[in-house]
Amino acid sequence: MTRATDARAGRRQRLLKALTELRCDAAVIAHPPNVRYLTGFTGSNGVLFLSAAQAVLFTDPRYDLQAHEECDCRVRVVRGPTWESVWKHAAPRCRRLAAEAEHLSRELWRQGEQRLGRSVRLEPLAGAVERLREVKSPEEVEAMRASAQLCSKAFQQATRRFRPGMTETDAAAEIEYRMRRLGAQGPAFETIVAAGARAALPHARPGAACLAPGQPVLVDMGANADGYMSDMTRMVHLGAPGRPFLELYGAVLEAQQAALAAVRAGAAARRVDQAARRALRARGLERYFTHSTGHGVGLEIHEGPRLGARSDETLETGMVVTVEPGVYLAGKAGIRIEDTVLVTAAGAEILTPASKELVVLES
Amino acid sequence: MTRATDARAGRRQRLLKALTELRCDAAVIAHPPNVRYLTGFTGSNGVLFLSAAQAVLFTDPRYDLQAHEECDCRVRVVRGPTWESVWKHAAPRCRRLAAEAEHLSRELWRQGEQRLGRSVRLEPLAGAVERLREVKSPEEVEAMRASAQLCSKAFQQATRRFRPGMTETDAAAEIEYRMRRLGAQGPAFETIVAAGARAALPHARPGAACLAPGQPVLVDMGANADGYMSDMTRMVHLGAPGRPFLELYGAVLEAQQAALAAVRAGAAARRVDQAARRALRARGLERYFTHSTGHGVGLEIHEGPRLGARSDETLETGMVVTVEPGVYLAGKAGIRIEDTVLVTAAGAEILTPASKELVVLES
Repeated sequence: MTRATDARAGRRQRLLKALTELRCDAAVIAHPPNVRYLTGFTGSNGVLFLSAAQAVLFTDPRYDLQAHEECDCRVRVVRGPTWESVWKHAAPRCRRLAAEAEHLSRELWRQGEQRLGRSVRLEPLAGAVERLREVKSPEEVEAMRASAQLCSKAFQQATRRFRPGMTETDAAAEIEYRMRRLGAQGPAFETIVAAGARAALPHARPGAACLAPGQPVLVDMGANADGYMSDMTRMVHLGAPGRPFLELYGAVLEAQQAALAAVRAGAAARRVDQAARRALRARGLERYFTHSTGHGVGLEIHEGPRLGARSDETLETGMVVTVEPGVYLAGKAGIRIEDTVLVTAAGAEILTPASKELVVLES
Repeated sequence: MTRATDARAGRRQRLLKALTELRCDAAVIAHPPNVRYLTGFTGSNGVLFLSAAQAVLFTDPRYDLQAHEECDCRVRVVRGPTWESVWKHAAPRCRRLAAEAEHLSRELWRQGEQRLGRSVRLEPLAGAVERLREVKSPEEVEAMRASAQLCSKAFQQATRRFRPGMTETDAAAEIEYRMRRLGAQGPAFETIVAAGARAALPHARPGAACLAPGQPVLVDMGANADGYMSDMTRMVHLGAPGRPFLELYGAVLEAQQAALAAVRAGAAARRVDQAARRALRARGLERYFTHSTGHGVGLEIHEGPRLGARSDETLETGMVVTVEPGVYLAGKAGIRIEDTVLVTAAGAEILTPASKELVVLES
């Protein structure tokens, strides 16, 4: 048995323990990152049936060879609707079956209740797999580190090619191409390249706007490397920036560093958010910071824990989170600085090594 | 009012009509392609409340400026969980509220029932928006055509650069870069480049395997251009192919042409699947064709109608579907040929113009 399959068997054991606490004797798991986490299967259509007695992955004929290659559990390839086979398999094998109520559609849930009949109760799994996924194993930390390093390297390679007159779209294409060439399966999310005042849209989609001399560019990018996501935002400036921009940049960097300093195992997640807000408040900028400070990242780009004002989670060693305060002045400017970091007992270990000194390009 | 907002208002009117048939007086829509179809909003978090009296899009502060720019209906930017605001807004404004039971999670559905209280019933919308989306408007057909042409052009540009020794991953990077540079927002799905026997995995993920002289390469790619997806599969061969490969290729091409010939408005979708299977059966290859013949495509890469043995839909003018038979010989070879086509009264209009003569590259 390889190390990876060892780890997966251990994860399934931990999930079985969580099931016992929910007084369930089996679970069905279909959310792709959860399926991958528990079985190794990376296809888009897989359902894991898990009980103390067995772990069986259901998939369709498109994934026959792939599922057998990737999974360390039994595989059943079925024709017709996958869920019909799953309910049929589950019905005689459990009494209380847990399912992912946050992911499974209301329609499939209803069908399940119908197919399972009266002798089996369908119960919400309540994020049990997601909670396991929040704390990364040493192997997963290595995968996250590799993803973050790949992201940083692609940023450096791509921004060297930024020129005035280049469209946001072309700049994003360059970034995604560099990530791909460095071994990523793709971007972790649609790369954001926002020139000038467009950076005030926190989720701007790259468009036909051009990078222009004397203007800042916001770059928010991440790699999907071997299934693990990274997330990083940096600001680039074409030509020397003016004083007002430098002051804003300094304020956001200060807030980001204050937030980073608040990260450590045992700290309340909302303290990190508070630290960023406090730093911006001191500069009169708090009201321009319109989102939360960060989120967990791993097999998905947004996972737990959330680092927001209302978060009630405590940071643990092995969690990987983003720290990304920003200020957005509508029609004028937007600045965000973001790292992906590992939570340790000592504090935050930054996984995205690209420098946070403002990147000033010749224009 | 622009043409686009005209079209969206018309779509909302058609949905209201469908609601009347469901005896519902309002709907909440959150599936992103459905939201985009009905409002123009392209962000990841938007919920439309629609009744005869009003259309209101709910989103969070990240999308404040963007939503106001994109939507042709009222926008409400809310802090905190978006759905809480939606349920609160809906409760006093309707008696029977339709929601997307195939998309909304069981958990959100349950919360909705709770928040709406006894005076409002939550009812499944039963794919009403998806059914509207199956038949494309002339403007949408133009967007699909542009996406398919972009895809074909990128294929031609990228395959010219294919060389023996290039990894599948690098070949996929080249394809996605070309699509991006031609104006795509990204690939419509993870590009498949499968060398040699790996093409027998219908959903192979590009890896470190190299393109090798004397071997075929399967390329399955699509562009997301302005939100509209294309989907095309072509085979490339490095160096002159042998007789057995050419025979297999000829059989699949024959099956694809038979399926294309069965496409026309008024035809049963399953007849298209039957035509492909019949052609392969004549060559003793039917059992190696392990998926259905095609699917609708538009704002999503997989939409209705399905072109499979069990499909009960009838093709209509304005539908856009893929036609993609394939044969997969485990450990040996995989061949698939796929076009995105428009259904017309006269037959299938192929939107992906790249030639289906086998592309033979110098090796």
